[in-house]
Amino acid sequence: MKRFFHYHRPSRFNKPSRIIKPAAIINPGRFLTLFICLTFLNSSSAQPLKTEPPFWFSQMHNPELQIMFYGPNISKYNVTVSNNIPITSIAKTENPNYIFVTIDTKNVPPSQLIFSFIDGKKTGFTQKYELKARRKDSALRKGYDSSDALYLIMPDRFSNGNPANDNTSDTSEKSNRTNDHGRHGGDIQGIINHLDYLESLGITTVWNTPLCEDNDPRGSYHGYAQSDLYKIDPRYGTNEDYLKLSSELHKRKMKLVLDYVTNHWGAEHWMIKDLPSYDWIHQFPGYAQSNYRMTTQFDTNASDIDTKYCVDGWFVKSMPDLNQSNPLVLNYLIQNAIWWIEYADLDGFRVDTYSYNDKEGISKWTKAILDEYPYFNIAGEVWMHDQAQMAYWQRDSKIGAIENYNSHLPTLMDFTLHDAISQAFSEDNPSWDKGMIRIYENFTNDFLYPDINSILVFAENHDTQRFNHIYKNNLANYKMAMALIATVRGIPQLYYGSEIGMAGDKDKKGDGDIRRDFPGGWIGDSQNAFSDSGRDATQKEFFDYTSKLFNWRKAKSVIHSGKTKHYIPENNVYVYFRYDDFDTIMVIINNSASEQTTKTERFAESIKSSKTGTNIITGKSIELNQNITIAPKTALILELK
Amino acid sequence: MKRFFHYHRPSRFNKPSRIIKPAAIINPGRFLTLFICLTFLNSSSAQPLKTEPPFWFSQMHNPELQIMFYGPNISKYNVTVSNNIPITSIAKTENPNYIFVTIDTKNVPPSQLIFSFIDGKKTGFTQKYELKARRKDSALRKGYDSSDALYLIMPDRFSNGNPANDNTSDTSEKSNRTNDHGRHGGDIQGIINHLDYLESLGITTVWNTPLCEDNDPRGSYHGYAQSDLYKIDPRYGTNEDYLKLSSELHKRKMKLVLDYVTNHWGAEHWMIKDLPSYDWIHQFPGYAQSNYRMTTQFDTNASDIDTKYCVDGWFVKSMPDLNQSNPLVLNYLIQNAIWWIEYADLDGFRVDTYSYNDKEGISKWTKAILDEYPYFNIAGEVWMHDQAQMAYWQRDSKIGAIENYNSHLPTLMDFTLHDAISQAFSEDNPSWDKGMIRIYENFTNDFLYPDINSILVFAENHDTQRFNHIYKNNLANYKMAMALIATVRGIPQLYYGSEIGMAGDKDKKGDGDIRRDFPGGWIGDSQNAFSDSGRDATQKEFFDYTSKLFNWRKAKSVIHSGKTKHYIPENNVYVYFRYDDFDTIMVIINNSASEQTTKTERFAESIKSSKTGTNIITGKSIELNQNITIAPKTALILELK
Repeated sequence: MKRFFHYHRPSRFNKPSRIIKPAAIINPGRFLTLFICLTFLNSSSAQPLKTEPPFWFSQMHNPELQIMFYGPNISKYNVTVSNNIPITSIAKTENPNYIFVTIDTKNVPPSQLIFSFIDGKKTGFTQKYELKARRKDSALRKGYDSSDALYLIMPDRFSNGNPANDNTSDTSEKSNRTNDHGRHGGDIQGIINHLDYLESLGITTVWNTPLCEDNDPRGSYHGYAQSDLYKIDPRYGTNEDYLKLSSELHKRKMKLVLDYVTNHWGAEHWMIKDLPSYDWIHQFPGYAQSNYRMTTQFDTNASDIDTKYCVDGWFVKSMPDLNQSNPLVLNYLIQNAIWWIEYADLDGFRVDTYSYNDKEGISKWTKAILDEYPYFNIAGEVWMHDQAQMAYWQRDSKIGAIENYNSHLPTLMDFTLHDAISQAFSEDNPSWDKGMIRIYENFTNDFLYPDINSILVFAENHDTQRFNHIYKNNLANYKMAMALIATVRGIPQLYYGSEIGMAGDKDKKGDGDIRRDFPGGWIGDSQNAFSDSGRDATQKEFFDYTSKLFNWRKAKSVIHSGKTKHYIPENNVYVYFRYDDFDTIMVIINNSASEQTTKTERFAESIKSSKTGTNIITGKSIELNQNITIAPKTALILELK
Repeated sequence: MKRFFHYHRPSRFNKPSRIIKPAAIINPGRFLTLFICLTFLNSSSAQPLKTEPPFWFSQMHNPELQIMFYGPNISKYNVTVSNNIPITSIAKTENPNYIFVTIDTKNVPPSQLIFSFIDGKKTGFTQKYELKARRKDSALRKGYDSSDALYLIMPDRFSNGNPANDNTSDTSEKSNRTNDHGRHGGDIQGIINHLDYLESLGITTVWNTPLCEDNDPRGSYHGYAQSDLYKIDPRYGTNEDYLKLSSELHKRKMKLVLDYVTNHWGAEHWMIKDLPSYDWIHQFPGYAQSNYRMTTQFDTNASDIDTKYCVDGWFVKSMPDLNQSNPLVLNYLIQNAIWWIEYADLDGFRVDTYSYNDKEGISKWTKAILDEYPYFNIAGEVWMHDQAQMAYWQRDSKIGAIENYNSHLPTLMDFTLHDAISQAFSEDNPSWDKGMIRIYENFTNDFLYPDINSILVFAENHDTQRFNHIYKNNLANYKMAMALIATVRGIPQLYYGSEIGMAGDKDKKGDGDIRRDFPGGWIGDSQNAFSDSGRDATQKEFFDYTSKLFNWRKAKSVIHSGKTKHYIPENNVYVYFRYDDFDTIMVIINNSASEQTTKTERFAESIKSSKTGTNIITGKSIELNQNITIAPKTALILELK
């Protein structure tokens, strides 16, 4: 999510109260609504209205489990738990409707627990709570990595697999495909329906923007203003549908990445409407906007007030900023994240606005998850334009260490490469600092990153200008960019629709225009670009190149984990090699407007004894003992033999 | 020195021979010329033609002294030395005209030594050699630091104090003031004559471009193509004149910085014309140009060939690139540098093209000098545009440490600040990333530098576009830039003539135009801007502001070593504070084209209990309990009370 994020403010936005005064805040009518909507675990009318996490798992690495019970004046009760399980602590806040009970689940097998809520000497009510069994080797799950190719989907805009859930009675915003910033009806079933398509494209991993309930009355389609962190938005489907998506992906050896938001919730989140404590969110009092200057997070010259407004200021008015330095908030976010991994059998997270969080809090959050799942992957959105500033945020960063900071974050996004890609391909003329030199220079700072293979490389995402808009659907530029993304170090990430030439103009028309509906995703669409026969000639060219490239990449461990050796671009031609003990790939990208000839002898240290190179797109072989002539605006990927 | 350095190639440039073949190379005629020019230490005709260092010092930290003797077939001799001094080693190269004799001077008092050159059993000749006494506490000399203000002079263009030495019989290029790229006659006496001027300007330290002999037939005025490293160019004066400059400065408690060049010598250097060994310089064979991509020095993806061409390639064809990985070369450069410190009683170096050197070699060079003089200062020219890349080169850099590299270099030059200064002041409109935001952002990365007080801050130097050209002699912009330079962390550096509004256009007219003669530096000049009465009204405004500012700065330890706290610019107004336990300085720079009002309450954490601020230029007091209104394009420096 970027600074200039387009959103629609809810017209009835309510500024959070300055001081929580339960009697004044608790609206019996709202409670009644919740009451009716919720499924209770037993029939007692005195049950908590919410229990979160709704269930948990046995044999977790961290045996401590903090359960939040929410209900009218629930804090007046004492709490006990069955099965001789120790209660480690009970926390209450200034809002009497919350009680946080921490138990020690060490050595507790999968079982049904019973919490008793005791008023004076008598049990007011009881609450069942389940500790489920974990999947085998759940803790050892291996996250996505540089052997994968990610595909970013905005589920509302990809495919409407279940038109019956386009509108639901319990969500405010109704479907309206004529509104660029409205809901269009895409859903989880739509993704499930097109896994063949993704597989054929060469994709291994799906990253979708958030699917949890976002009950914002407007602009809710993007999902970043979440209103319930334990429930898939009913317009996308059910929790079970999400689990099905995960399992269908796993059947194909594909992976699923959840887009997690630690920085903020939507103003419609039920807890925001009845804050557990004044400091659950950052208040000034109430709303103040972030200054978006993330450099204040490490700048030793920064003023306290600027740092505070960066980190504590709200991203937008409809998204109250969470206070991760409050241990109850932090723990809520940690457990929720772990719950989704365990429940939906996830392969990774992408974390929104990572570097806007309280930096100590987000470090603890990240570490807690990786303590549970040491091989899991988490990519943080650190949208900066300086590699040292980005590298600060990667796990075990030497730059972070200057300030004794360690985020524990395994994966970053290569935003400086994105910056370069967004400019380089329209710079045809050789230059000291433009064209392919921009791309080359991005990689000269790789040494700043502690783990350069754990960086997402991408030409665009849901918050950036569309690549095919910048370059006016120029196929040659697209091919060069994809050849780059597919062969440089890191984890390639595509954005849905780019592979059929989809465009859109964020700057003039807003975010809605870079999140257009995928053609063929809706019943009755005039075209179905999901199928080969449905794609027009241009779309075929985009798709076929992408598909060939990423299917080729799947098995190429030299690309996944090989070293890089690159050569200073000459005449706007960039040549680099990926190599390991077994294989060598040579990539030549001629970004100039004229045919270029490169002298292979310059690359002798990389070519070594290889005699020929096979073009991975055409299958044709090229002799390496002579110069290589390459057409204008062309990428050539050669497997050396 | 920058990549686009303008120079004139000597028309009779001789490519160095591929393989040294002494018989073919030694030109008796050349020897005869040298013979006549040199002053011999005794009358024997069999003396070496050169002995370097020409003398040395007793009681150095490193007792090893390597003396190079040069003469026809001198390597055939055995060598002994008087006073029971041990000869540690004798090195000979493939050129028989050189012999390198290393002696151990430990505990040897100041004395005259006698070297005997023995051919078979008889002494061919002897050579006297002096170990002089050092100045008291020479090793403890304190280099320039952030309490100083440097003034960079191109001596040929500053003032001609001795017209008698404008041309000399032993140097090729003759004086011609009508040639922008020719010699104009400025000299050391010209600098000595204007120390009052510099002192009145608020300067504490003089950095002049190289003064050693540069016998290039053209463009020799800049001095970077040195032809004798132990001799001041006679057109600037004598070694004794340079010592006098040093001592005159010291009488005023001012300091002297020598511009050292480790990377290359001029093609006219006598050793280049008779190379001690083929690998004394980098040969491909002979000349190849540097690719100037300094990132190859640390880029883990860089190809070997690119790194080699960066480091070993020549800066320009007239300046053969020295091989600092050859221990004889490295030691020659170390001893020569130490000799000048000791001889001329120096306060510091500025090192040209620091990051083009063999990086291990330059690290050893730097360390060797600081081992002798632990409190000396050396500023390296690391002309990069990325702070992490620059910070790599500072002593004890955490970024260098990623690659186990430590340059030992105490001081850098803030080229990224220079980049920002060169653009910001013409950007009047508030913006997300322009105007004062550029300046602010430069300082957000200060944490990357291990010693942020040891960085030269400057608006221009002899290789950059002139500030007053960029901004068309706009006095308001000049004042803002100077206010900035004078008050931010680091060591301010001015470039001669800027303080009277001197301009010049490097891009269109070349380096000569940014190195114009200082008006009044030559007898008969129509104007003398060195004196108050000689300055016109505009020059007075430039000068008086600069003088006021830097004289004020002299005693302000809070500026020299205080902390910085800065605030995100709003409406193109940048506010920052320098503070320590005793003092607080508030700086407000309004770069917008309109009057601005800043709310002082935003700066409460810096203003603390101060009630008023005194404008250091006008002496007027401002109340701090109300908002501060500041005129367009104005800097306000307040001492808080």
